[in-house]
Amino acid sequence: MQITANDPKRISWLNVDKNSHFPIQNIPFGVFITKDDIITIGTRIGDYAIDLGALHQLGYFDGIPLTDDIFLQDTLNDFIADGRKTWRLVRNRIAEIFDTRNGALRDNPVHKDKVIFRMEDVEMQLPVAIGDYTDFYSSIEHATNVGTMFRDPNNALLPNWLHIPVGYHGRSSSIIPSGIPIHRPQGQTIPADSDTPVFGPSKLVDFELETAFITTAANHLGEPIPVNEAEEYIFGMVVFNDWSARDIQKWEYVPLGPFLAKNFASSISPWIVTLDALEPYRCAGPEPLKPQLEYLQYTGDKSFDIKLEVAIQPENGTPTTVAKSNFKYMYWNMSQQLAHHTVNGCPVNSGDMMGSGTISGKTPDSYGSMLELSWRGEKPVKLNDGTERKFINDNDTVIMTGYCDNGVTKIGFGEVSTKLLPVWKK
Amino acid sequence: MQITANDPKRISWLNVDKNSHFPIQNIPFGVFITKDDIITIGTRIGDYAIDLGALHQLGYFDGIPLTDDIFLQDTLNDFIADGRKTWRLVRNRIAEIFDTRNGALRDNPVHKDKVIFRMEDVEMQLPVAIGDYTDFYSSIEHATNVGTMFRDPNNALLPNWLHIPVGYHGRSSSIIPSGIPIHRPQGQTIPADSDTPVFGPSKLVDFELETAFITTAANHLGEPIPVNEAEEYIFGMVVFNDWSARDIQKWEYVPLGPFLAKNFASSISPWIVTLDALEPYRCAGPEPLKPQLEYLQYTGDKSFDIKLEVAIQPENGTPTTVAKSNFKYMYWNMSQQLAHHTVNGCPVNSGDMMGSGTISGKTPDSYGSMLELSWRGEKPVKLNDGTERKFINDNDTVIMTGYCDNGVTKIGFGEVSTKLLPVWKK
Repeated sequence: MQITANDPKRISWLNVDKNSHFPIQNIPFGVFITKDDIITIGTRIGDYAIDLGALHQLGYFDGIPLTDDIFLQDTLNDFIADGRKTWRLVRNRIAEIFDTRNGALRDNPVHKDKVIFRMEDVEMQLPVAIGDYTDFYSSIEHATNVGTMFRDPNNALLPNWLHIPVGYHGRSSSIIPSGIPIHRPQGQTIPADSDTPVFGPSKLVDFELETAFITTAANHLGEPIPVNEAEEYIFGMVVFNDWSARDIQKWEYVPLGPFLAKNFASSISPWIVTLDALEPYRCAGPEPLKPQLEYLQYTGDKSFDIKLEVAIQPENGTPTTVAKSNFKYMYWNMSQQLAHHTVNGCPVNSGDMMGSGTISGKTPDSYGSMLELSWRGEKPVKLNDGTERKFINDNDTVIMTGYCDNGVTKIGFGEVSTKLLPVWKK
Repeated sequence: MQITANDPKRISWLNVDKNSHFPIQNIPFGVFITKDDIITIGTRIGDYAIDLGALHQLGYFDGIPLTDDIFLQDTLNDFIADGRKTWRLVRNRIAEIFDTRNGALRDNPVHKDKVIFRMEDVEMQLPVAIGDYTDFYSSIEHATNVGTMFRDPNNALLPNWLHIPVGYHGRSSSIIPSGIPIHRPQGQTIPADSDTPVFGPSKLVDFELETAFITTAANHLGEPIPVNEAEEYIFGMVVFNDWSARDIQKWEYVPLGPFLAKNFASSISPWIVTLDALEPYRCAGPEPLKPQLEYLQYTGDKSFDIKLEVAIQPENGTPTTVAKSNFKYMYWNMSQQLAHHTVNGCPVNSGDMMGSGTISGKTPDSYGSMLELSWRGEKPVKLNDGTERKFINDNDTVIMTGYCDNGVTKIGFGEVSTKLLPVWKK
């Protein structure tokens, strides 16, 4: 089936600014609440939120096999579980409905009133109930930077890194959508030259610039997913800020990995951009530096050219972009990650989320965390208000964005923006 | 409110064998499917499964604030979310209904026919939809054994171990109830004296003898749970086999912790024994060997005397008990685990599960894994059919059980029994 929704020549009868992340070629999926407290699954074109539940009730999806309430839900899990063919039919249909040549909805003010909202009039929700969340560690530049800082510059990569898309399990319950503020976490840290920990606020709160993909139900317990089939089970992607408390992490993470240093909060952009929409931006990833085991060997291009940016905005200030990176720098791609995750038979369900790990590039201005940008605090980062940051201050807002631009069409993820409040008090 | 359900003198009009884990003093909660394909929440007395959905429809819970469909569900999550007061009211009422002095149900054959099933006529399900699963590492004997084998016998415990109830995130999607067979996982391992991994079946599949507790909704993002309030949010416990592939684990786990070595399967006993039912078996845990930070300091006894056993049953053979341990050996208790888990504001939801980590005792016959029992394979374990095991063979069934016995009343968890099938083939 063709992805007709990607037609770069299509124009919407809804007004779309030329710099918008959401032209009619995007058609992402999300969940929002209207001013009337109606929660629904929707999409976005330009600065308009579109109620897919209302569109479906009005018959605009007739002919596509969908249950009546598929969009009248507070999560996308069931829709995602319907599979790629359904996603594609729905996305193609939405493109047709909003195509400038189609008057059915355009010329029906009663229907338009039920279906179309201004973005400032809706509140975006977490788009999926995330069952399991896994975070990978797939940027060679990031892994090398961390290994250089904390271990040995001459053996920065651990022996398994070039063989395994290293990953670990994270916490789903603390994943929040853009816009929800978080508190500086407290926890145990170990003072320099002491063997006794102290309790208190983390002094080294950091962001991690990541993307994440959302899966559909993929396999049963025991069954692996072949690497070249993996994309069939990837619904779409979000931009992801994997908040980290570096001082807590340092003390707790041996031998079983990061725990409280990560699970106080993780923020995602609220619109899931489908893998179908990203198709025009497909590209090759880095060449392997060592041979990879057969179950990780793929054919074709499995990476995507997605530009990523992080900005820090102090209280009452303006944002300063502190890093620019790209998803295509990832050494291990999503297909390899999913094949690896399931090679032992681990089941993957609709709504599971898998993070990329911090995505750093080769140059210091492309590093995806303050840990790397300020090199453990040795090189503070200057903001445009004249202040400096080694890590994130109370009341700073961290804003991440991602977009694709091939010179013909630009589509994006909007942003994930999270304010760090001071320590929580009762 | 008194836990009248625990009255040791109460006798049920249902026949209960004197060695049963399920006298009328237990009243655990689970989910089962009847022969007529009805799925319901239930409890168990002796060898009888009791349909709480039917009991509720017939009015036996009148006066307790419960929604009509609270037991007509395929998971306990909503019931658990109702909170401790409701659990206690329901459990007390069940004890009254089945008390030998109460004829209401006993003398109503039509009602009995709708409510009571023989255990062999029902199929136990996973009792909760597990949102997040965390595994701790809280047995000092286990951590010391592992540190002695793989690191330094003179510094077996890592520096953080006596300060932190070390934990890490696990995978919810591969948690299964007793009775579901699993396949030997495949994955990457590193041959001795090689720097290049190979792919194939794990040769070192192991069990881990654990318990796990199931939580109710406890806190919001940002808010910690004080250690002395933690038990309010613990619904109950299960016996838990945290299957592990030691050779996969060894190669993958640095620096972010175990991943594919664990997430191919984790098995739990299907009846959740409430913390209320365990109250008569409350006891002190080990004395701290080092001062603990204030947020981990508790008052009163927070451990429980729960005897734990593991047996291995070869294909067509009989079970051999290979280890006997006890929950009370745990250095860190559940209250400390939950206080630690949330001290950074990490939210805990209804149906989350937290594993103890392998529970080993001081003597070699109390070690909770084959890794320790066979000491890395150096001391094979003899089974009663004359064969030996270093780890688990294809077609072996691993059977764990747990029970409390204070000389007055014995209550238990039943068993978690899981057969290891050969590698999955398409």
